[in-house]
Amino acid sequence: MTDTTTINPSAERIVFAAAELFRRQGFAATGLKAIATEAGLPIGSIYHHFPGGKTELGETVIRITGAGFQELVETIIDAGTNLVSGIDDAFAGAAATVEASDYADACPIATLALEIASTNEPMRQASDRAFTGWIDALTGRIEAAGCDRKTARATAISVLSLLEGAFLFSRASRSVEPLHAAGTSAVALVRAAISD
Amino acid sequence: MTDTTTINPSAERIVFAAAELFRRQGFAATGLKAIATEAGLPIGSIYHHFPGGKTELGETVIRITGAGFQELVETIIDAGTNLVSGIDDAFAGAAATVEASDYADACPIATLALEIASTNEPMRQASDRAFTGWIDALTGRIEAAGCDRKTARATAISVLSLLEGAFLFSRASRSVEPLHAAGTSAVALVRAAISD
Repeated sequence: MTDTTTINPSAERIVFAAAELFRRQGFAATGLKAIATEAGLPIGSIYHHFPGGKTELGETVIRITGAGFQELVETIIDAGTNLVSGIDDAFAGAAATVEASDYADACPIATLALEIASTNEPMRQASDRAFTGWIDALTGRIEAAGCDRKTARATAISVLSLLEGAFLFSRASRSVEPLHAAGTSAVALVRAAISD
Repeated sequence: MTDTTTINPSAERIVFAAAELFRRQGFAATGLKAIATEAGLPIGSIYHHFPGGKTELGETVIRITGAGFQELVETIIDAGTNLVSGIDDAFAGAAATVEASDYADACPIATLALEIASTNEPMRQASDRAFTGWIDALTGRIEAAGCDRKTARATAISVLSLLEGAFLFSRASRSVEPLHAAGTSAVALVRAAISD
């Protein structure tokens, strides 16, 4: 389970069952037995695929769903006619997804990452690696659009912070207003960074 | 338990014990028995002060800690020589607090709010009321500094999104870099809003 690209079908069922339960009821409250039941597999299958138990499974959930989210956002951004319109589309797409899921589906790892940040070091590191991947990918795109690397990195961190904070406020308020407000600000920050 | 300003000393001990346990191990994983033990009170005391049980306690934790956080941030912002330097100070103060707590103390309600957003409607509404209080307070300050209400509100939502997102990335990376980057962007957004 050290590679994002290869995953056995049973292991994949376990990962998606675990991701859903962690999201729905939290990491601490979710037992391996409930994950096995949700996946429709015997509990021994979890130990077979994840000898490190719940923590290894948690790391894998963060890695796989974090990479999936990054790929989705990159696809939307890169389909824009330019970086600014791509960022605008990404926030609009996030708002549409959050609304369509009745304010349930937002960032796949933020809830888990906040829950375990101070209590589970391997999972904390996995969330850091996922977020670092997002920050690096966006930094590269802002830099390529015409910006020094330092400003590009600070802007990328800010754009992703706007997205994560707006996900929180949108879910709490059951409204897309925060994602629209944050999207407008993200566009202004990126525009300023690349026109300086 | 409908007023933020009056709280019985026993109820207060229960609220702070619950807040600490919810933060440390999550809402779903925390039982009333553990809260009573942490507070050093019999479990009957919880039912006495919170007849609505864990959900009423969760709502109260969100209301009390959300109001406390708002008061803290408002005090820092209002101590600045102007709104822009006050916002700058608030992000710098957040970074110092997060670092001093070994990346444990950030937003007192975000972790809880994300965990229960789709599963506990009374607590979701309590988190919405807390965040609405923050957004209204900051909107009023930006408007007073010279900005139309609509732009002031979108800017306030963006500044608070930057703070919440940066808390997440700072805790995950065990670094204050995200809070510094987000603070610089928050200052730029507020400056642009009030100089338009």
